[in-house]
Amino acid sequence: MNKPPYVLTIACPDRVRTVAAVSSFVAANRGWILEASHHADPLANSFFMRHEILADSLPFGIEVFREKFQIVADEFQMRWKIADSAVKKRVAILVSKQDHCLSDLLYRWRNQEFDFEIVCVISNHPDLRGFVEFHGIPYYHVGVSPGSRDAVFGQIDQLLVRQSSDTIVLARYMQILPAEMCRRYAGQIINIHHSFLPSFCGGRPYQQAYERGVKLIGATCHYVTAELDAGPIIEQDVIRVDHGDSVEDMMRLGRDVEKTVLARGLRYHVQDRVLIHEHKTVVFA
Amino acid sequence: MNKPPYVLTIACPDRVRTVAAVSSFVAANRGWILEASHHADPLANSFFMRHEILADSLPFGIEVFREKFQIVADEFQMRWKIADSAVKKRVAILVSKQDHCLSDLLYRWRNQEFDFEIVCVISNHPDLRGFVEFHGIPYYHVGVSPGSRDAVFGQIDQLLVRQSSDTIVLARYMQILPAEMCRRYAGQIINIHHSFLPSFCGGRPYQQAYERGVKLIGATCHYVTAELDAGPIIEQDVIRVDHGDSVEDMMRLGRDVEKTVLARGLRYHVQDRVLIHEHKTVVFA
Amino acid sequence: MNKPPYVLTIACPDRVRTVAAVSSFVAANRGWILEASHHADPLANSFFMRHEILADSLPFGIEVFREKFQIVADEFQMRWKIADSAVKKRVAILVSKQDHCLSDLLYRWRNQEFDFEIVCVISNHPDLRGFVEFHGIPYYHVGVSPGSRDAVFGQIDQLLVRQSSDTIVLARYMQILPAEMCRRYAGQIINIHHSFLPSFCGGRPYQQAYERGVKLIGATCHYVTAELDAGPIIEQDVIRVDHGDSVEDMMRLGRDVEKTVLARGLRYHVQDRVLIHEHKTVVFA
Amino acid sequence: MNKPPYVLTIACPDRVRTVAAVSSFVAANRGWILEASHHADPLANSFFMRHEILADSLPFGIEVFREKFQIVADEFQMRWKIADSAVKKRVAILVSKQDHCLSDLLYRWRNQEFDFEIVCVISNHPDLRGFVEFHGIPYYHVGVSPGSRDAVFGQIDQLLVRQSSDTIVLARYMQILPAEMCRRYAGQIINIHHSFLPSFCGGRPYQQAYERGVKLIGATCHYVTAELDAGPIIEQDVIRVDHGDSVEDMMRLGRDVEKTVLARGLRYHVQDRVLIHEHKTVVFA
Repeated sequence: MNKPPYVLTIACPDRVRTVAAVSSFVAANRGWILEASHHADPLANSFFMRHEILADSLPFGIEVFREKFQIVADEFQMRWKIADSAVKKRVAILVSKQDHCLSDLLYRWRNQEFDFEIVCVISNHPDLRGFVEFHGIPYYHVGVSPGSRDAVFGQIDQLLVRQSSDTIVLARYMQILPAEMCRRYAGQIINIHHSFLPSFCGGRPYQQAYERGVKLIGATCHYVTAELDAGPIIEQDVIRVDHGDSVEDMMRLGRDVEKTVLARGLRYHVQDRVLIHEHKTVVFA
Repeated sequence: MNKPPYVLTIACPDRVRTVAAVSSFVAANRGWILEASHHADPLANSFFMRHEILADSLPFGIEVFREKFQIVADEFQMRWKIADSAVKKRVAILVSKQDHCLSDLLYRWRNQEFDFEIVCVISNHPDLRGFVEFHGIPYYHVGVSPGSRDAVFGQIDQLLVRQSSDTIVLARYMQILPAEMCRRYAGQIINIHHSFLPSFCGGRPYQQAYERGVKLIGATCHYVTAELDAGPIIEQDVIRVDHGDSVEDMMRLGRDVEKTVLARGLRYHVQDRVLIHEHKTVVFA
Repeated sequence: MNKPPYVLTIACPDRVRTVAAVSSFVAANRGWILEASHHADPLANSFFMRHEILADSLPFGIEVFREKFQIVADEFQMRWKIADSAVKKRVAILVSKQDHCLSDLLYRWRNQEFDFEIVCVISNHPDLRGFVEFHGIPYYHVGVSPGSRDAVFGQIDQLLVRQSSDTIVLARYMQILPAEMCRRYAGQIINIHHSFLPSFCGGRPYQQAYERGVKLIGATCHYVTAELDAGPIIEQDVIRVDHGDSVEDMMRLGRDVEKTVLARGLRYHVQDRVLIHEHKTVVFA
Repeated sequence: MNKPPYVLTIACPDRVRTVAAVSSFVAANRGWILEASHHADPLANSFFMRHEILADSLPFGIEVFREKFQIVADEFQMRWKIADSAVKKRVAILVSKQDHCLSDLLYRWRNQEFDFEIVCVISNHPDLRGFVEFHGIPYYHVGVSPGSRDAVFGQIDQLLVRQSSDTIVLARYMQILPAEMCRRYAGQIINIHHSFLPSFCGGRPYQQAYERGVKLIGATCHYVTAELDAGPIIEQDVIRVDHGDSVEDMMRLGRDVEKTVLARGLRYHVQDRVLIHEHKTVVFA
């Protein structure tokens, strides 16, 4: 059994020799590439790469890699990052009363479907404490009342810092985060919106879908930005409905889509498969 | 081989005894029901039915049916209609330069996949004349120039009347119909829009989809109303895209969805499977 | 809030007047039909119906309904049944080590997504006791060893009887039930098979799928019969895979399909939406 | 507007430095890589690559590329090929009476959706001559009668040779090709089978699907080998059916899947996106 791989992600201007420079660097150090993905965006003149490199195959550790590779990176004006997938992402989950997404993520965490830590669950309701604590995960009830928003999100922020969480999942958390917090955690907050965005932004999307009479409903996993429901989309999916489906039926059907879409999006994120480029994503699925 | 069935469609307030009244009427006349579909909408207090009745099983023709059934209909305040499916709908197709939907509908017509007549094809471009006339179908080139809209749609209207068309299909026709025409042919004009409405109304929806970075693109078949892209939706579908797909790729992938969605929608329409209720549809698929 | 409805399901030879007879019976007793579904199978000369009738709208209870309706049923040679949906189905879940389906069903039960009782969980492994008992549901560990099958299934049978379970769900239970038990509980045992049947019957279906190089994998929810993986299919679904997916990836992707397909199938079953006809099902979804 | 790219495809044992060797070769010759795809198969110890290289960016033509690259190829034991996508694949279509796939391919060819030539259509029926010849494509009617198989397929073979066709599409051709012909054109004959293989091999798959009561039907595009319906799968898809769908309904629904799946598979093939590895495919979609 090998050590989990290093994941090298790169965004840079698109020019000749980029792939050769990176792969030659890796080869020169006898690095074994498990998985390689490239994407050239000619309109944006941008190039994106992701490599999984067998950690054991390299003659040095991640710090030395960083030092040595910086020379290549500088030459090609790369924004880049290397992550050791042996170090699990530290995920804080924010949730309100509905627990289909939370319950699904807890299942995947229990069964180690993919690697991530759930460092805590934070909720504006006390209801889910028992289920979360059964899993041995800390549960913080931080109620939100009119006028309390500043204090509340200050408190949440402290919890996130204390738990050293690097990823925040809004698993049907029905509060809007402060813009400042969205900016500070840019590319680290993942939301599941219960519609096929950009249709039905904002509140009560299933009600909106019902009223419009659409024949498919969907869900969207996206990074949170200060502008509501407008952040870069990571993953989406849909399910068929018809005239016989009430708003409640749509909610039931939609929950299955929401939880699957969120889980896929989170997996892409924690495995460093998502590169954000302006307001869109490159997902090396 | 039996005569094609009669199709009886009914919308009425939802109350006790409606189904019994209709089915007893049919049974009393020894009518054989091939297919029966019901939908109760408790919010709108409305009830919808569709029956396919074996024409040969009744002791009288469609005119006598109309006369006799009116008594039941009056008692239950029904809006209703009976259609003889032996009489094919007369479909006029409007098209611009792109012919994927037209080509697909011509295939289905040639092969009698479902029953409809194509009485003519009208286009603002001359390009598709040869292919249409190969099928023995009249092709009218009615060019649109700035300032000519009134004359143009007057001419189109005359063609529709002359051909006794009862259904108008906008098979990627890139002109906006006059509001007055939309109202006059309410429930008879079917459009295919190249997005998953209500996302990306208006022009260049694939460009919009590309810019937003959605992970699925779609198409919507809907009845045309005076308000652009806002009419009752008949059918929708989607297909997956990713960061590697350019606008041109989306257009290519989308064409396959567009033609399938339009064909399904048209089939539902010509088989009297669609009941319009306010700005939504009941589709007894 | 009304009492939950009665659900009347009927299978009979297809002949004139059936619908009229049923709907007139209901109407004569002022029964309010919430939902009605019909299916005529001309090849089998069979007719299938399902009605949801508002319990409160009838002047009598379910026992009197049974008595009175028998007269109609006899005339039309109906196999029929009326169920009070206020009386929840009693579901016993059999499971081995993998708990994605179990976990998903427990979520739906906790949140009352649809009405059913989980009367107990029986497993040939002790692993899931804690999670099940957290829900307040009895957990029975009934290990299977070579030569113990008769004793084991005798014991399981006793548990099922003691819990008055009327529905048995094999939620990835990796043991084959005795043929005699399959026959005795015909139409009451639901299995989830981890392939798109009839492809890849038997063991290790993901391994089989990988070796064949299929581009979609699936799951099948079906009633269990004495013949392995050959019972009437209730529901199926698929998900896309490609050459990059290992057997382990397929297992991960497949789990999401399995749990959704099983949940849909179970919902259809407990809501009396499934009518078995020989080795196939009519599902009034 | 650039010249269409060269497409370089490689299969070789999986070892360190392969990617570096290829990309360095390309970079050293100032080749611009438009698209790069890699796949490592650890179980088979195999590595697969596909590069699209801007033809104009290289200082030499394809023949010189072949010569120079052979040195790299030898070192890494590559099976490899470079194709000039300016040279269109020459496709012969074999068809019987059903023309949904043929009609769809003709549409895509007419509209240059992707690059390929249709050099001729060969059929065992005369029916489709008019439609094919309207497109300016030669149509050969080669009837099949009992005992004539040897002569018939000899004649077809001559036509294929005379037209220099490099790709043969069985677009619902209802005859079985001789094993010898399958072997000689290995990796060049594409069939569309009207089921989700490996379910329902052989004849009348929709009838088989109907009898089994499956809830989804599908289609499979695969390379033809001497063993019926067992060749490497290129693409598959499915569509939902229910108890209300007759065999005829399934055939109608299935046709839409068949034509889309075949068109996708053919596009992958003519763009050299498919690498066959034993009895499976790697598809760089």
